[in-house]
Amino acid sequence: MAMRGILRLGEVQIRVLDMAEAKRHYGKYMGLHEMMTDAEGKVYFKAWNEKDHHSVVLRETDRAGLDHFAYKVFDDATLTELQRKIEAFGIAVENVDAGVYPKSGRRIKFRVPTGQEMHLYAEKEYAGNTLGETNPGTLPDEGVIRGMRIDGLDHLFVLGPNMADTVRLFTEVFDFDLAEELVDEPGGNQILTFFSCSSRAHDIAFGMHPEPDRFHHASFRLSSTEDHVYAGDLMGKYGIPIEQNDRHGITGVKTIYFFDPSGNRNEIFVGGHTRYPDTPKLTWTMDHLGLAAFAQSLHVPETFLGVST
Amino acid sequence: MAMRGILRLGEVQIRVLDMAEAKRHYGKYMGLHEMMTDAEGKVYFKAWNEKDHHSVVLRETDRAGLDHFAYKVFDDATLTELQRKIEAFGIAVENVDAGVYPKSGRRIKFRVPTGQEMHLYAEKEYAGNTLGETNPGTLPDEGVIRGMRIDGLDHLFVLGPNMADTVRLFTEVFDFDLAEELVDEPGGNQILTFFSCSSRAHDIAFGMHPEPDRFHHASFRLSSTEDHVYAGDLMGKYGIPIEQNDRHGITGVKTIYFFDPSGNRNEIFVGGHTRYPDTPKLTWTMDHLGLAAFAQSLHVPETFLGVST
Amino acid sequence: MAMRGILRLGEVQIRVLDMAEAKRHYGKYMGLHEMMTDAEGKVYFKAWNEKDHHSVVLRETDRAGLDHFAYKVFDDATLTELQRKIEAFGIAVENVDAGVYPKSGRRIKFRVPTGQEMHLYAEKEYAGNTLGETNPGTLPDEGVIRGMRIDGLDHLFVLGPNMADTVRLFTEVFDFDLAEELVDEPGGNQILTFFSCSSRAHDIAFGMHPEPDRFHHASFRLSSTEDHVYAGDLMGKYGIPIEQNDRHGITGVKTIYFFDPSGNRNEIFVGGHTRYPDTPKLTWTMDHLGLAAFAQSLHVPETFLGVST
Amino acid sequence: MAMRGILRLGEVQIRVLDMAEAKRHYGKYMGLHEMMTDAEGKVYFKAWNEKDHHSVVLRETDRAGLDHFAYKVFDDATLTELQRKIEAFGIAVENVDAGVYPKSGRRIKFRVPTGQEMHLYAEKEYAGNTLGETNPGTLPDEGVIRGMRIDGLDHLFVLGPNMADTVRLFTEVFDFDLAEELVDEPGGNQILTFFSCSSRAHDIAFGMHPEPDRFHHASFRLSSTEDHVYAGDLMGKYGIPIEQNDRHGITGVKTIYFFDPSGNRNEIFVGGHTRYPDTPKLTWTMDHLGLAAFAQSLHVPETFLGVST
Repeated sequence: MAMRGILRLGEVQIRVLDMAEAKRHYGKYMGLHEMMTDAEGKVYFKAWNEKDHHSVVLRETDRAGLDHFAYKVFDDATLTELQRKIEAFGIAVENVDAGVYPKSGRRIKFRVPTGQEMHLYAEKEYAGNTLGETNPGTLPDEGVIRGMRIDGLDHLFVLGPNMADTVRLFTEVFDFDLAEELVDEPGGNQILTFFSCSSRAHDIAFGMHPEPDRFHHASFRLSSTEDHVYAGDLMGKYGIPIEQNDRHGITGVKTIYFFDPSGNRNEIFVGGHTRYPDTPKLTWTMDHLGLAAFAQSLHVPETFLGVST
Repeated sequence: MAMRGILRLGEVQIRVLDMAEAKRHYGKYMGLHEMMTDAEGKVYFKAWNEKDHHSVVLRETDRAGLDHFAYKVFDDATLTELQRKIEAFGIAVENVDAGVYPKSGRRIKFRVPTGQEMHLYAEKEYAGNTLGETNPGTLPDEGVIRGMRIDGLDHLFVLGPNMADTVRLFTEVFDFDLAEELVDEPGGNQILTFFSCSSRAHDIAFGMHPEPDRFHHASFRLSSTEDHVYAGDLMGKYGIPIEQNDRHGITGVKTIYFFDPSGNRNEIFVGGHTRYPDTPKLTWTMDHLGLAAFAQSLHVPETFLGVST
Repeated sequence: MAMRGILRLGEVQIRVLDMAEAKRHYGKYMGLHEMMTDAEGKVYFKAWNEKDHHSVVLRETDRAGLDHFAYKVFDDATLTELQRKIEAFGIAVENVDAGVYPKSGRRIKFRVPTGQEMHLYAEKEYAGNTLGETNPGTLPDEGVIRGMRIDGLDHLFVLGPNMADTVRLFTEVFDFDLAEELVDEPGGNQILTFFSCSSRAHDIAFGMHPEPDRFHHASFRLSSTEDHVYAGDLMGKYGIPIEQNDRHGITGVKTIYFFDPSGNRNEIFVGGHTRYPDTPKLTWTMDHLGLAAFAQSLHVPETFLGVST
Repeated sequence: MAMRGILRLGEVQIRVLDMAEAKRHYGKYMGLHEMMTDAEGKVYFKAWNEKDHHSVVLRETDRAGLDHFAYKVFDDATLTELQRKIEAFGIAVENVDAGVYPKSGRRIKFRVPTGQEMHLYAEKEYAGNTLGETNPGTLPDEGVIRGMRIDGLDHLFVLGPNMADTVRLFTEVFDFDLAEELVDEPGGNQILTFFSCSSRAHDIAFGMHPEPDRFHHASFRLSSTEDHVYAGDLMGKYGIPIEQNDRHGITGVKTIYFFDPSGNRNEIFVGGHTRYPDTPKLTWTMDHLGLAAFAQSLHVPETFLGVST
């Protein structure tokens, strides 16, 4: 009980068109720490304050998008139990041995109804945040927090068909809460759904899309409003294209959307509701799309609805 | 799985010496909303952004301190299961019918090893935060957020004997994580322990004290650093005695400690680590007490160690 | 010496199409305090932390725009001396007796080369900020700081022809510093000019426009980044149209542009360079217009260049 | 007119007991940039966003304190005029040739009534802030803003006898405004005086002290509340002794006082009133010393009154 089962988004593997440019974007500009390059040339990053070995993996290829995303679970028994439940739900699960994904324990691998490849794992090599576990203090040495001063990879927003199955999978099998939803009309179809498995506003979100396996964005957590402004200033300095700088009505986070050089969308955010499983679901309707999506400007850029990778 | 079991601190009942002064402090100064007065004269408050009917109950009497604290659990079945586990642990549990505590479903009631009366409950009347659940937007009307701009009651710090039993109860029975601890020496006795049942830094904390049932403080969550500064400015305006304005090394929150007119200690805070059950426990040693307690000034006021109610 | 001569923007008189809507916008939404209505129906406002009687005057008529703007000068002798210098510069000056403009001492009145009516005055009735001048403390009572939490009217941006004369008038006659400029090419024509008469980034700005007497915006100062975000949230809540939320490269301020119900553009901002008369002029070139204007997104909305009142 | 005469505090020369420790404190910890060491071993620093060559000079010797402070004036003619006025006031003035103080134009040198050596100068070698003067953008490269993220040297607080003469000198000769004062009783003696020569809350302050030439502190300006918190966190990390972290009632700035390794007091601050020459003087009385000095805690540490160098 308490906080168990699926804990958090632990890894995204993103396809990039040019690794040198991508390393500059995710490394120098965003400030993630480059941890290693594997034999296939994939590059592994972590945010300074993440403790597992890596959270972002970049793979160079000729098409942008998301290879897979992976959530960390409480322990190995959880993994076994979830495999049983996912298969009972009717989704085929593949077992992957420890070490196949570098620094990672065994995984289970399957496709969610929206078409993305999802992994679950219970173990990843520990790297720490440079402060240690005994009398760590509060600040790392100068230079460890850099670039956009990102605290950690936080959540994911993906697109595809089969929203109803997605909701069933995440609530009934994964025990996430459906925290918020955007519906076409009161009592109508779900266009967007936001799920939480923690005391935070959301841990994953889905949007309806006719094509499966579309990637909308991966989102990174900042520590303060001032760091949010600083990140926006850095984007201007480095010429990173900003799509929107606003407040989400849904989840309440202060957000900036921007693009990596391959056209993958990134988000940085700060704040957002503290929520619990007993917090009633919030429902937003399409006639309030502006407020739901971008609650300051009430304006939704066409690209935000139309562009995915 | 995900976030289940015990969810959060939902209620503290605090003894005050003068209700008029206490209402001014918790109501006008701190900005909590007064919800009702019961037949016995107890006054019920909630923070604007809490959705259950109340979280702070004040009872006027001739001795300051804490009557009880109550955590909300996921559902009624959780309550039944926890009763079984608590009794199996060797603690006597009393059943309290719904409605005995106003606006509350049935409760189970027992004493934790440090001597405080703890309740668990699954239901409390819903009051909402004025925004509703459909297209709520992000800001309530002018005047709803007031005083210290408190978002919600957050956690509790209590004192008493029997630390080892406390750790066993909260980790083995309640499935909280022991997130951080202060020990007298490496591998030595636990002086302070901090437990999390969420993705936040702590949900309850305990300190060694020879006497049982001592109340150190109840803590309230703010939304931004700027609100933290504003709350400090308000304390000066209203002549509320500040004990310390600093950063905790443990948990990483920015804190201000102050006293209500009866001498009960309050805390407001912002920030703190995002943590998960797989985050390694952080250990602080007494020779780094300054850094552990107040990581900016490294100074621990004598009252902070010596005064409780 | 020290800070003398022209001190600051003290008043703007703005034309609005519907006074009820305008009062809601400048009063309830922006949080300015309504001070009085004069015999002609003009409504007078001040920001809570301004000490003179009013800074914003609204006049209802059938065309939006700016009636006049007025700067406060050090003393009456300054007014006399400035009249002499302005006439020597070749601009006709009209004398206006004390009391013609309510609560105001005598004024001198003339048209700047860009066509706007400008006033100078040395006296205005004192109203205070509710805190008094003896042991004022730091915070007014609850409710005094409201709406967008504006600290004060700050500066002005107007459009018209005759940029070279404008620069000569403001630097040679008024002793302002040309702090920053946007030029069409290195060494080329000035498109935008920003002048400071204080230790702040700018006190007035001008843009080239073929038509005289065009009003781009009046700008209001906030006290913190968090209040800036809060103001943006309020704009969404009240449906106030936001034009841009970004950082200015020029002056370095964090800005939001929005419109009043009559189509007059307003700005709120926070921050910006601390500057002095010995700070070298900063020059921006049209090929860096994005960075100069909006240094996060590098995007300049067409309305920002095309819409004025 | 506008902003002329004396512009700002441009230089402090501080005596330190151990240069290696002092360089670590002012360089690595505070984040000032080391610019040069002169033939006598004095070390010169500037804050990243200051444009003149240096603002802080450290001299190693066996007694802590302040050698001199220097204000920059508008131009050479101002220097000549001020020399005449200072001598007419009855203070002896010494002329110092350009270059005697490295990177500096000619100076005039004299003792203020409180006993400190004060300089005035119109020229100092330009160093810039790394951004240049053409299309500078808003952010320097990573690593330029470091340590306590100080924007610039800001103001000075010194102690000594002869308060009445000090007030006459700064208001009648230097044309500063007496912005705020602390008096022993209404209409009584001035204990503390705060003067502004800009649109900011204060540019220099004086306190009564029986001994002449005592140094209370030099103060450095930050850009945001978040940087203020960050600086406090750094002080804890580096073990820098904090004397007080609070809000000043006088001037309204958010402050932290701390000590360099030689015992000289430093201040970092953010915010404070925007003020103008027409802002009425604020008067604080000794029976409100707590509010005047530290408006959150209302507590004045004994060291704050008793310790100077």
